[in-house]
Amino acid sequence: MSSSDIFIGETIGTAILILLGGGVCAAVTLKASKARNAGWLAIAFGWGFAVMTAVYISGPLSGAHLNPAVTVALAIKDGDWSDVPIYFAGQLLGAMIGAALVWVAYYGQFHAHLTDKEIVGGPGAQATAAKAVEAQEKGAGPVLGIFSTGPEIRNVVQNLATEIIGTVVLILAVLTQGLNAKGDGLGVLGGLITAFVVVSIGLSLGGPTGYAINPARDLGPRIVHALLPLPNKGGSDWSYAWIPVVGPLIGGAIGAGIYNVAFA
Amino acid sequence: MSSSDIFIGETIGTAILILLGGGVCAAVTLKASKARNAGWLAIAFGWGFAVMTAVYISGPLSGAHLNPAVTVALAIKDGDWSDVPIYFAGQLLGAMIGAALVWVAYYGQFHAHLTDKEIVGGPGAQATAAKAVEAQEKGAGPVLGIFSTGPEIRNVVQNLATEIIGTVVLILAVLTQGLNAKGDGLGVLGGLITAFVVVSIGLSLGGPTGYAINPARDLGPRIVHALLPLPNKGGSDWSYAWIPVVGPLIGGAIGAGIYNVAFA
Amino acid sequence: MSSSDIFIGETIGTAILILLGGGVCAAVTLKASKARNAGWLAIAFGWGFAVMTAVYISGPLSGAHLNPAVTVALAIKDGDWSDVPIYFAGQLLGAMIGAALVWVAYYGQFHAHLTDKEIVGGPGAQATAAKAVEAQEKGAGPVLGIFSTGPEIRNVVQNLATEIIGTVVLILAVLTQGLNAKGDGLGVLGGLITAFVVVSIGLSLGGPTGYAINPARDLGPRIVHALLPLPNKGGSDWSYAWIPVVGPLIGGAIGAGIYNVAFA
Amino acid sequence: MSSSDIFIGETIGTAILILLGGGVCAAVTLKASKARNAGWLAIAFGWGFAVMTAVYISGPLSGAHLNPAVTVALAIKDGDWSDVPIYFAGQLLGAMIGAALVWVAYYGQFHAHLTDKEIVGGPGAQATAAKAVEAQEKGAGPVLGIFSTGPEIRNVVQNLATEIIGTVVLILAVLTQGLNAKGDGLGVLGGLITAFVVVSIGLSLGGPTGYAINPARDLGPRIVHALLPLPNKGGSDWSYAWIPVVGPLIGGAIGAGIYNVAFA
Repeated sequence: MSSSDIFIGETIGTAILILLGGGVCAAVTLKASKARNAGWLAIAFGWGFAVMTAVYISGPLSGAHLNPAVTVALAIKDGDWSDVPIYFAGQLLGAMIGAALVWVAYYGQFHAHLTDKEIVGGPGAQATAAKAVEAQEKGAGPVLGIFSTGPEIRNVVQNLATEIIGTVVLILAVLTQGLNAKGDGLGVLGGLITAFVVVSIGLSLGGPTGYAINPARDLGPRIVHALLPLPNKGGSDWSYAWIPVVGPLIGGAIGAGIYNVAFA
Repeated sequence: MSSSDIFIGETIGTAILILLGGGVCAAVTLKASKARNAGWLAIAFGWGFAVMTAVYISGPLSGAHLNPAVTVALAIKDGDWSDVPIYFAGQLLGAMIGAALVWVAYYGQFHAHLTDKEIVGGPGAQATAAKAVEAQEKGAGPVLGIFSTGPEIRNVVQNLATEIIGTVVLILAVLTQGLNAKGDGLGVLGGLITAFVVVSIGLSLGGPTGYAINPARDLGPRIVHALLPLPNKGGSDWSYAWIPVVGPLIGGAIGAGIYNVAFA
Repeated sequence: MSSSDIFIGETIGTAILILLGGGVCAAVTLKASKARNAGWLAIAFGWGFAVMTAVYISGPLSGAHLNPAVTVALAIKDGDWSDVPIYFAGQLLGAMIGAALVWVAYYGQFHAHLTDKEIVGGPGAQATAAKAVEAQEKGAGPVLGIFSTGPEIRNVVQNLATEIIGTVVLILAVLTQGLNAKGDGLGVLGGLITAFVVVSIGLSLGGPTGYAINPARDLGPRIVHALLPLPNKGGSDWSYAWIPVVGPLIGGAIGAGIYNVAFA
Repeated sequence: MSSSDIFIGETIGTAILILLGGGVCAAVTLKASKARNAGWLAIAFGWGFAVMTAVYISGPLSGAHLNPAVTVALAIKDGDWSDVPIYFAGQLLGAMIGAALVWVAYYGQFHAHLTDKEIVGGPGAQATAAKAVEAQEKGAGPVLGIFSTGPEIRNVVQNLATEIIGTVVLILAVLTQGLNAKGDGLGVLGGLITAFVVVSIGLSLGGPTGYAINPARDLGPRIVHALLPLPNKGGSDWSYAWIPVVGPLIGGAIGAGIYNVAFA
């Protein structure tokens, strides 16, 4: 694959991943969304199918890593780090584009949610000032949650461990796809299986930290959250930001190590 | 494919798409439906599997576009517009047939819902006059929602943008299916993957406008809503009707443009 | 396929279909079930995966019709009715066995539900007499619903129409499987696609009548409901029983007719 | 397959199975989990995709039995018991490792749940003593439920019967995979189909006992529950522990017997 195909593929693919993944968080969280309060199963299937859609679209161009932890794991497995920087660049840029597109698609919903007006220009418009303070005090957290992950219980060791464990499962599922079925591997079925693996990780390991399991998925949208002109958006929780970056990278390395020892 | 196969395939396929897609909206919305209030996940899976069922049935006849935005995107990609009118005609006719079949399948439920009688001929029948006024005032909106989409927040720019973004994702997923797996493409798996892409768009991008992402899916049933002899049905919201037609067509063109630049 | 393979395959397959399909209705309905009130999405996926499981198990023996409407449609399509009686016999016997196995698997739950004792031998045991009358008056309906379908609104024309429409969709999806992908058909993927078609019909067309779309699925368990020694079970609603038999058979014939005209 | 590959494959695979399967139970049950109260559908899909993920990862090494009932059924079918002990050993060890990993991933959630402190070190910390007694009295049951199964209604005959019936369905679905599609079997699709069979069993037959259908899945985590230093964890219900071991083993033997008589 050429460097430009890799960059374009990872940028488009990660943009679609975050557009759809961040989108389902917006859909379930924001006021005036038809999917509001659709529940955790919607979140888990939403992220899984986001991965699937992005994998099938960008696969022909870049192989669809879409995740620095996957890129690191494949580099360790293959002993080839030459394309890693270009993968990382495309992934981070794509994640930022995707997060911005979520904001575009849910523009009115963000505004209504953060200012507590159900309908723009509706009868609630006059009460904005008082409501905005209230929204900022109790409502800003969920809006950051549309962009980036955060722990239910803040504990560096557990939060790191949970992200590492989730990422190891993902990496093993990705790396072993070429081994199945006597030489052929999963072939075109791989994108679908990966999607359901991500649903599985979400349902089973997402409870404590919201399962970043992907540094670009968390860091790119967090930068966009910091930059966007959202009213009452609150802070971007930078003190937590290193965990969903470092944890998945450690998980990627451990997953590749287990693969090299047990499966290669 | 012959013109008659295209017309018949698109008519049957789009009829099944709208029968099942409109059906799940009826099932979740109407009184005296066993699936009432089944939630957004039911809507999203319902429309996704509606697409899947229609694609597998009509695929051998017409290639299963079932969506003018897909037809436009393929015409741009291939530079061949000769069959476009016959695709459009089949899609619009099929969508109208499908919407009429939803009305047949849920005949008693529509009547009970719009007149607030749980059981036809039951003890609530005498209270119809007063209730009907009340139903018209607060209940007619959801009945249009069984046929056509509508925005939670009415904003031309955002509503168009959301429909365009959703359609671009759909088009990229459809156009790149032939590229995967080194020449073979997704093959028979394509219909299933497309179904889950549609579930994904519904979960992630359906919150603001209800994701038409298909002009025929919205316009055909809206015409049927205007024609059907439903009591207290309210207006068909024609002022919004151009957005789910124009937005997906723009999305189809943009998707095809991205494909031609980045993937072809 | 030999007659004995057909009979054994249809008996085992339909028994598994009804065990799992009736099972999810019991799971969602009965007291002291961990899945109680799991909702319509659980019902729809439960029946879809019930079909899938039964199809993959019995497919090698009998081709996995599991439904007299499918058998009739295939006989019309192929012009060969010689094996129809043996298919019907296996399907009806299997459906009865499956319904009896649901009763075995949920034995304590049926008892607790119908006598309003949460735990057998628990402190509620003394209050049985009064509660049983109450349970019979308000609770027996759902127990028949575990075995057989019933309409939310009793209307012969609509109920028949809904069953016919649902069955036509099923039959078209089954008959066209051999046409896809340029001669190969769906192959082993067919069982999975059929499962999701059934989920789709359940989500979209199940609201009015509970989607029998299969005469054996409804009649066999209704006979078992009439025979089982369940306390306070109420009547078996024989006046409705002909609709989920006749409707799907008409639907099978119409589906085969559409296939022969448009697809063959 | 070499003995070491079998042992390593079953250990890794069963560890992932229980990590993800126990994980979804923790996610849905524990305080301070984002997935709390996500419902039975989340449980059923969570366990199904847990099986799928583990099957695709460990399949190339050990064939991915991951369940002593599957190992017994295959030994009966093939008449070869030589590798059975090494399969059993890997399965039990893996199940224990997986249960311990659930504890690591949900460390803070277990602590908060069992001591009724939402946030570690938060304002509720002082009220621990009184709350702990209360938690022990009413809350310890669900924590065992994260590790092992338990019946809603305690009835040896019914509980055994339900586990046997569920396991027979699983075993028939596994054993007949090689028969489908005229000699090829399900191939790489098998892991996905097995996943949905497990979802089906969970939705349809999980209501009474929580569907162990796998002795290692129940016994390994129960041992870990007994060993872990969890506050207020309550007993490990050893009086029930033999049923989810013996029931599935009987089910495996019956399933293999039906296969040998009807399908071989």
